[in-house]
Amino acid sequence: MGKLRRVPVGIVGASGYGGVQLVRLLMDHPEVELVYLGGESNTGKSLASLYPHLAHAVNLPIEAVEPEIIASRCEVVFLSLPNGLACQIAPKLLEKECKVLDLSADYRFSDLTTYTAWYGTQRNDHAIAATAVYGLPELYRDRISEAQLIGCPGCYPTASLLALSPLLKQGLIVPETAIIDAKSGTSDGGRQAKVNLLLAEADNSLAAYSIGRHRHTPEIEQICSDLAGHELTIQFTPHLVPMVRGTLATVYATLRDPGLVRDDLITIYNAFYRNSPWIKVCDSGIYPQTKWATGSNLCYIGLEVDPRTGRVIVMSAIDNLIKGQAGQAIQCLNLMMDWDETLGLPKLGFYP
Amino acid sequence: MGKLRRVPVGIVGASGYGGVQLVRLLMDHPEVELVYLGGESNTGKSLASLYPHLAHAVNLPIEAVEPEIIASRCEVVFLSLPNGLACQIAPKLLEKECKVLDLSADYRFSDLTTYTAWYGTQRNDHAIAATAVYGLPELYRDRISEAQLIGCPGCYPTASLLALSPLLKQGLIVPETAIIDAKSGTSDGGRQAKVNLLLAEADNSLAAYSIGRHRHTPEIEQICSDLAGHELTIQFTPHLVPMVRGTLATVYATLRDPGLVRDDLITIYNAFYRNSPWIKVCDSGIYPQTKWATGSNLCYIGLEVDPRTGRVIVMSAIDNLIKGQAGQAIQCLNLMMDWDETLGLPKLGFYP
Amino acid sequence: MGKLRRVPVGIVGASGYGGVQLVRLLMDHPEVELVYLGGESNTGKSLASLYPHLAHAVNLPIEAVEPEIIASRCEVVFLSLPNGLACQIAPKLLEKECKVLDLSADYRFSDLTTYTAWYGTQRNDHAIAATAVYGLPELYRDRISEAQLIGCPGCYPTASLLALSPLLKQGLIVPETAIIDAKSGTSDGGRQAKVNLLLAEADNSLAAYSIGRHRHTPEIEQICSDLAGHELTIQFTPHLVPMVRGTLATVYATLRDPGLVRDDLITIYNAFYRNSPWIKVCDSGIYPQTKWATGSNLCYIGLEVDPRTGRVIVMSAIDNLIKGQAGQAIQCLNLMMDWDETLGLPKLGFYP
Amino acid sequence: MGKLRRVPVGIVGASGYGGVQLVRLLMDHPEVELVYLGGESNTGKSLASLYPHLAHAVNLPIEAVEPEIIASRCEVVFLSLPNGLACQIAPKLLEKECKVLDLSADYRFSDLTTYTAWYGTQRNDHAIAATAVYGLPELYRDRISEAQLIGCPGCYPTASLLALSPLLKQGLIVPETAIIDAKSGTSDGGRQAKVNLLLAEADNSLAAYSIGRHRHTPEIEQICSDLAGHELTIQFTPHLVPMVRGTLATVYATLRDPGLVRDDLITIYNAFYRNSPWIKVCDSGIYPQTKWATGSNLCYIGLEVDPRTGRVIVMSAIDNLIKGQAGQAIQCLNLMMDWDETLGLPKLGFYP
Repeated sequence: MGKLRRVPVGIVGASGYGGVQLVRLLMDHPEVELVYLGGESNTGKSLASLYPHLAHAVNLPIEAVEPEIIASRCEVVFLSLPNGLACQIAPKLLEKECKVLDLSADYRFSDLTTYTAWYGTQRNDHAIAATAVYGLPELYRDRISEAQLIGCPGCYPTASLLALSPLLKQGLIVPETAIIDAKSGTSDGGRQAKVNLLLAEADNSLAAYSIGRHRHTPEIEQICSDLAGHELTIQFTPHLVPMVRGTLATVYATLRDPGLVRDDLITIYNAFYRNSPWIKVCDSGIYPQTKWATGSNLCYIGLEVDPRTGRVIVMSAIDNLIKGQAGQAIQCLNLMMDWDETLGLPKLGFYP
Repeated sequence: MGKLRRVPVGIVGASGYGGVQLVRLLMDHPEVELVYLGGESNTGKSLASLYPHLAHAVNLPIEAVEPEIIASRCEVVFLSLPNGLACQIAPKLLEKECKVLDLSADYRFSDLTTYTAWYGTQRNDHAIAATAVYGLPELYRDRISEAQLIGCPGCYPTASLLALSPLLKQGLIVPETAIIDAKSGTSDGGRQAKVNLLLAEADNSLAAYSIGRHRHTPEIEQICSDLAGHELTIQFTPHLVPMVRGTLATVYATLRDPGLVRDDLITIYNAFYRNSPWIKVCDSGIYPQTKWATGSNLCYIGLEVDPRTGRVIVMSAIDNLIKGQAGQAIQCLNLMMDWDETLGLPKLGFYP
Repeated sequence: MGKLRRVPVGIVGASGYGGVQLVRLLMDHPEVELVYLGGESNTGKSLASLYPHLAHAVNLPIEAVEPEIIASRCEVVFLSLPNGLACQIAPKLLEKECKVLDLSADYRFSDLTTYTAWYGTQRNDHAIAATAVYGLPELYRDRISEAQLIGCPGCYPTASLLALSPLLKQGLIVPETAIIDAKSGTSDGGRQAKVNLLLAEADNSLAAYSIGRHRHTPEIEQICSDLAGHELTIQFTPHLVPMVRGTLATVYATLRDPGLVRDDLITIYNAFYRNSPWIKVCDSGIYPQTKWATGSNLCYIGLEVDPRTGRVIVMSAIDNLIKGQAGQAIQCLNLMMDWDETLGLPKLGFYP
Repeated sequence: MGKLRRVPVGIVGASGYGGVQLVRLLMDHPEVELVYLGGESNTGKSLASLYPHLAHAVNLPIEAVEPEIIASRCEVVFLSLPNGLACQIAPKLLEKECKVLDLSADYRFSDLTTYTAWYGTQRNDHAIAATAVYGLPELYRDRISEAQLIGCPGCYPTASLLALSPLLKQGLIVPETAIIDAKSGTSDGGRQAKVNLLLAEADNSLAAYSIGRHRHTPEIEQICSDLAGHELTIQFTPHLVPMVRGTLATVYATLRDPGLVRDDLITIYNAFYRNSPWIKVCDSGIYPQTKWATGSNLCYIGLEVDPRTGRVIVMSAIDNLIKGQAGQAIQCLNLMMDWDETLGLPKLGFYP
């Protein structure tokens, strides 16, 4: 309103849940203008043909993905593509001085051999990947501010790391005892027609999957190792929950000091996240529900100590598509542009 | 249990929801033995590879669909295939004296021009189609008993016709005022990976579809016309409801005699369905919930008269995959074999 | 932001879903300041004790309900109370020149004998009730602008009337043929611990209720009669749907002119709602889903004509707690204060 | 069918989910006849007034709870009451030589001081409690066969103990590393009108509760200690999942022998449960879904070893109201009566 100029922004991969979430959030952002939507499979269609409820609000077509043209029109580009594609596009965009925020796994790893081991794809963009910053603002705020390329984490690493970080950073737990039992709604699987994500299959059912081999494991371990100061192996188990949105991580670890009580940990977490406007540490005795976070960029964290077992139990709840995906990418953009970290992001969802 | 012999039965199209439901129900049926499962897309696989929870219970492979071989092994064949395929297989099975129960639309129409108009497929099996009986036992019990070929109705016609039949048969309503507002869970769409049936899309949402052009309309009209004694046009509107199972039809019609009250209609319905063990007419003031019928072959019917408007409102609730599909087919088989109509079928589901 | 003064606003009945929705929406409204929350059953508690996710965002206690004190602190008061209580409080607030927006049924009726007939409560505030305006802005925008007391409609009348109004106003249908088959999520029942609203009971089930005697019937008839210019009786049937939010009204009526086609009606509806920013008429062939409206103040309307039956079918989808309750009240407030009708209200929800 | 006599059975506390589930299951049991339903809060009502879908099937009233009269009519009595009531009734029934199966916590503890510590109720029936057997047939088959009084475990202990028992019994894990992350549908909370169990609150949300202090913890520890041969403390965390039925326990523990692989454990579990017809150990690489067990008395167990961490992860899925409650009680009855352990119990649910 009265601004001379908004920053022109584009999205490659606009038709999936990550893309449409970015579209929706960027429409409310006061400093940017959405000028480009791209996608291979739906080129030439309007976004409204895929999401009719947006017909009155979004008037952009889905265009072909040509990096030169994108770079000529956008200062900032979000990449919301399957793994292995961003690394083919990002270098060209960076060369043209675009800021790039990638929502895939391509730029989350400081060591590309880990990427290749878990994702099965050879990479030859080591120099560029080395400049990428892991897009978890609560841990890497300063580095994000100065980066041109961000590898944004998804819902499981976000929920898991926000729960574990204070414990590891302060050396409060025996690291190898850490177990993350994570649960997520089915939108986590994207807008892909898969039988196991059908309502008829997934509703009123619950199961674990990919135990010991989920691809989010190595990035959780990478960041945990960074915080702990030495290499760590973490137990991570995801579950598919019969709900649309929301991720809950329930984290278990043995305390080094068995005398710590719940309120000590609440104090420690509040201090750790003092400058993190999107983290809300729950009051003593309150455990977070995923619905609280739905529709917002918030992460609610609850803490418990079990004196019988000497363990701390941390729960973190986020909206998997906002703080766990598109909202977090915009939070990173805010930092990169030196805007307020909360700018244009939803501060509260609607309950119930 | 001491029986000399069970009737050998086969299912063509065993991997979808209709097929697996037949498998499950036939396992409990005391007079049949399931000896053959067939399917094109999964030939050679075990059923357990598609439905792991059945691994300990079903040991049959999915075989190629060769009518000669099927007929040599089965006395009864259920066809659970997409529309347009049964009419290619059934004639060969009938020729070999199999009894055939088709769950598709292929044999539901007495006039194949209606079929072709709504389904777009030319047919050249008029002689055979003319022998088919519409598999709604509550209306056509006697004809089913003597038939060799049954065209079994699906969930919408079953729920709609069970609600409407007494009114039309007794001439209680002005037929052209009949409106069927029907609602069904997403399993009605089958085990097909479609975006609109994903939990993330369909959960917590509700919409109508195919208004005025749903393919179940002409078969509802065919039976209604048969009952009324003249050609009728019926308003039928289906809705997709965020639940796995269940169909509810809410039927509106103007009463010819505005003096009829709710209890009159309850009496009339109880009389009409006196010999129909699967129909339960609710007590005065009770409206049926779909969950009551889930897991059973029951149809619950509730009745209301609105004296302000002179309309009757009838609600019928069924499990779309049992009374609305596989269970009803077995009910028909029971009649064809001169067994008790309730034999081997679930008489109550589990609540809640 | 730089405003000299925000309008002080209060909510009586803040702890229910209507109340907490008002709290949430008013937090985002740029022209008001929430200064008072009242409630009988939770007096003295903080709102955060009832809704822990708001602990960081709302710092107001729930106070006793004393009209004198409320009026001294608030210029605008929302009443979100059970039926029969607002009419005891509103007169005192109006006397002190507060603007009052009532979310209950107390001030929705131009004829209080209708209220008494359906709600069973005698009323002696006829003079005040006569000044109340029915808070459906799309129909009564001008009168709302000049009113001091608004009787805001709930989700069923809102969805039903927005679907029916153009037809009745333009005389396009035979009025007595109108049938409203309405469906709503369970939040419609409020935050009350009732067995039938438990997840274990209501999930994966569907049923009609209160047929011919739902209390929203007379207000729907009152407004329809006003539009048609003569007394009407309308068939209205609500259903409880296994979802949290959302109301869908499927409306059937016989067209006077059987030559009208779908696109004619889309043109008529677009013209009727030309100045109504919250109404979105769907493109030809698109039917609205409740999820599209969830989290916004929008109403999506879809239209179909069935030339076989001569009927029009109109579907309207809203968020029952926003356009069907709290959002609509704020929309009315915007008009009363001469602010933009869309001010401070959510323009799009998050999908999926 | 031709039996001279069925065993007369009664249920005290018939109106809750446990009670109605017992009613439903016992209706299908070939050796018993349900002759008595009792309950304090609904005395004099018919069961059908609480569960209208049973109107055609159950014709028993809910009678007052008078142990003398119950004992005169029933040989077997199921008690499905809130904790602390069974211990007032059971002694009188036992004295009259009834067999008693209690679904509450009253008779689950070999040491009543544990009961009093966790449930806050003093007990003076130590002699009788000492005769009670813990009703988990897979562990205590022989003792159950000879018992007159059974304390049946609920869903969490059942799922947890079936997952953990082979590991503890064989000494395969470091016991104090065992963590049970359990998840259950909301029917687990019973048919009680509680705000947190409303669909509007619980649907599309997920949270942990009662961490470190859930009352099922001490009975899990009691049995684990029994199996391990020494006192154990176990970490147990329940979560409320947005679904009606189903319990999944995800169990983590560190293997003593890091060389054990998944298939070793599958072999061990299959051996352990060789004579347990209700336990199905999944094939290698298959993890159980709660929906598989819904509507049956089955427990599906899946196994995984994470060689990176040296942990075993065991998942067990049951229907919380059948194998986790009423079905298991009937399984115990079958043993007590020397009937086949599977008699009258549902062997497969309906999928999906």
